[in-house]
Amino acid sequence: MSSPIDLLRRQVSDLHQDLVRYNLVVWTAGNVSARVPGEDLLVIKPSGVAYDELSPENMILCDLDGNVVEGDHSPSSDTAAHAYVYRHMPEVGGVVHTHSTYACAWAARGEAVPCVLTAMADEFGAEIPVGPFALIGDDSIGRGIVETLRGHRSPAVLMKSHGVFTIGKDAKAAVKAAVMCEDVARTVHISRQLGEPLPIAQDDIDRLNYRYQNVYGQPRAAR
Amino acid sequence: MSSPIDLLRRQVSDLHQDLVRYNLVVWTAGNVSARVPGEDLLVIKPSGVAYDELSPENMILCDLDGNVVEGDHSPSSDTAAHAYVYRHMPEVGGVVHTHSTYACAWAARGEAVPCVLTAMADEFGAEIPVGPFALIGDDSIGRGIVETLRGHRSPAVLMKSHGVFTIGKDAKAAVKAAVMCEDVARTVHISRQLGEPLPIAQDDIDRLNYRYQNVYGQPRAAR
Amino acid sequence: MSSPIDLLRRQVSDLHQDLVRYNLVVWTAGNVSARVPGEDLLVIKPSGVAYDELSPENMILCDLDGNVVEGDHSPSSDTAAHAYVYRHMPEVGGVVHTHSTYACAWAARGEAVPCVLTAMADEFGAEIPVGPFALIGDDSIGRGIVETLRGHRSPAVLMKSHGVFTIGKDAKAAVKAAVMCEDVARTVHISRQLGEPLPIAQDDIDRLNYRYQNVYGQPRAAR
Amino acid sequence: MSSPIDLLRRQVSDLHQDLVRYNLVVWTAGNVSARVPGEDLLVIKPSGVAYDELSPENMILCDLDGNVVEGDHSPSSDTAAHAYVYRHMPEVGGVVHTHSTYACAWAARGEAVPCVLTAMADEFGAEIPVGPFALIGDDSIGRGIVETLRGHRSPAVLMKSHGVFTIGKDAKAAVKAAVMCEDVARTVHISRQLGEPLPIAQDDIDRLNYRYQNVYGQPRAAR
Repeated sequence: MSSPIDLLRRQVSDLHQDLVRYNLVVWTAGNVSARVPGEDLLVIKPSGVAYDELSPENMILCDLDGNVVEGDHSPSSDTAAHAYVYRHMPEVGGVVHTHSTYACAWAARGEAVPCVLTAMADEFGAEIPVGPFALIGDDSIGRGIVETLRGHRSPAVLMKSHGVFTIGKDAKAAVKAAVMCEDVARTVHISRQLGEPLPIAQDDIDRLNYRYQNVYGQPRAAR
Repeated sequence: MSSPIDLLRRQVSDLHQDLVRYNLVVWTAGNVSARVPGEDLLVIKPSGVAYDELSPENMILCDLDGNVVEGDHSPSSDTAAHAYVYRHMPEVGGVVHTHSTYACAWAARGEAVPCVLTAMADEFGAEIPVGPFALIGDDSIGRGIVETLRGHRSPAVLMKSHGVFTIGKDAKAAVKAAVMCEDVARTVHISRQLGEPLPIAQDDIDRLNYRYQNVYGQPRAAR
Repeated sequence: MSSPIDLLRRQVSDLHQDLVRYNLVVWTAGNVSARVPGEDLLVIKPSGVAYDELSPENMILCDLDGNVVEGDHSPSSDTAAHAYVYRHMPEVGGVVHTHSTYACAWAARGEAVPCVLTAMADEFGAEIPVGPFALIGDDSIGRGIVETLRGHRSPAVLMKSHGVFTIGKDAKAAVKAAVMCEDVARTVHISRQLGEPLPIAQDDIDRLNYRYQNVYGQPRAAR
Repeated sequence: MSSPIDLLRRQVSDLHQDLVRYNLVVWTAGNVSARVPGEDLLVIKPSGVAYDELSPENMILCDLDGNVVEGDHSPSSDTAAHAYVYRHMPEVGGVVHTHSTYACAWAARGEAVPCVLTAMADEFGAEIPVGPFALIGDDSIGRGIVETLRGHRSPAVLMKSHGVFTIGKDAKAAVKAAVMCEDVARTVHISRQLGEPLPIAQDDIDRLNYRYQNVYGQPRAAR
């Protein structure tokens, strides 16, 4: 019989395949984590391991300070940022980090993706904001994510000159946000190449977002 | 033995794989429907279900007001728009909706794709037109589609700031229109990035379209 | 035991998979043909049939006027153009037609792809030239191809507002030319988006082309 | 029992699949080689052979002057360049050559890719530099690679009007550099299409590069 942590190991391992399938990552540059519900623990990708070598068994279990609790490899070098988010945003159950191409292209200019598609209004409810430039090695990246996303409708932040972090109620929701972030970053980029996308009125953005977050899809369990 | 509705359930389920294969959709953002010939019914994708979890069994059967007649899930949140098209365009047997990248890039600027490729003259016989900005929730989207496409040669409309709807004599024809719409939206976009595509004379567009719609391909049954 | 024509049917059927694999075609928009060596016959794709439904058996055998000699379907609607090339260029053993994206983007502007990559000098030995605008239905397309490519080093022509035709000593060589044509059309397009690619001296183009056409690769049989 | 050279044949053969998987090559245009540790030998792709026909058995064993020691085919036409690198950079254990699209787009303009992403600071530690225009046939290409990369942090060089060469401590590291080179060349290109990417301070580049080269990932053996 599988424990809740075993199930989470499998889910986190499997979700990395969505990063590959939607072309959000190359080589080993991207990672998914999940909070262990009700415990001060998280499950995350091992560092520097190829996506087709991931398995439930080699996922790393860490505490919320990023220390390894169980696992034979080092955890992702982005573990500190994931852990910071879980410590400071109790509503977050999953975190994803990628260097997906179009999102990084906006991040490299330090420019937010404007909300000019109804699908963006649905998913993000606002522009996708830019977070500060921050070096790896301490809490700077985690703090930048939390300060940007706290109180923001968007579950995605473009960290300046770096890449994307997304959050969700669970790891699957965070992966979905990473997929949609790249999709709209690409579409809006391409639209702007030949002119200026039309704005959507704030009122319409609000209505679309409210409806999507509260009505769309199957009853919660099936989403 | 399979009933006509069972066959349609299979066809609609399978055609969603073409949306995936031709990169017209990510996550769950796109849907195919078919009219049940001779009945006031349609078959459509369930809402918020992943493409690799679709099967003939979980397709939803609705009446032409979008009410579920048979099915365990909610129907696509775009069902009202599909149903409106079937109610008002009796010649339409299939409807497709996508947020495909290049088509959406034109839609975000509210700009029609000009007919500057012989393949566009063949398939669309004209520019691909823009429909109004419309919020989900009532008949606005359906009405915008019908008012734009009625009397137009193009089987595709770019709904402003939103995405693509295509129609066809059956679901397969509507899927083909969605595939070709993205293909020409991409090619014309890329062409315009480095200059201005050459116009094709209206007379030539007319001749190409007439020939393609009446001569090309295998006898109708085999298309 | 397989006859030479049976082997050619298999080869032509299989080579269509390369068009799919290298993203040169969508739906049914592209075709490969081969001359039957020593006979006034060609083997070509049936019209309007999906790529994953192609088989040696449903390839169409035509004479060099494009009349069906053997086959249950109509031949490709581009058969007249292929046949014209075989009638007027006896050295050609294979012809390919695609609407590949970047090549069509240049074709839509009526602009040749300049020879600014050593790989282009190798394969094409010159710019990839533009052929005339020509309607389907008579010999205009075939004549445009032949008049543009005769005496030109390039095995590929961009037919204005239409697409690509490539030729080769056999069908595989024509497919390779179609693959490389899209590859260099894309790279040069992308290069020009941010400035002007550096020219390569004519003398260097000549040397590269001579070497590649005469020295590169395995002994002829193994190419 | 497998000899060290047999293992290397397999590794070099397999690594070509990464070139395909990451879309760095079309047809036969790209190659991987590895130095045989402790011997004046290298293993390289045969010339003009398709990627899905590669096997450990048809890899070519050459001396460091590029002469075939063992193998039924001709070695890659780029063997002289690989061999030159091994002769002049004893620390190099693997070399990769591709015509990957975005890297070639910068190479065609003779323009270095500026270091404006933290992932570039990690992997390349600097801009990706441009090497001279050089014709195939003598040591010009090899010399251009070595003169550009010697003393440079970047393991990748954009050879003017030509393509990419990357080096690594082994063939896998060189393949990784080729994958990351195309990835950042693409992201920076796309970023610059709509404005100017923000610079990263030299000091920050230095710190990121030092950390990544010394701390990241699993202990060396597992990388």
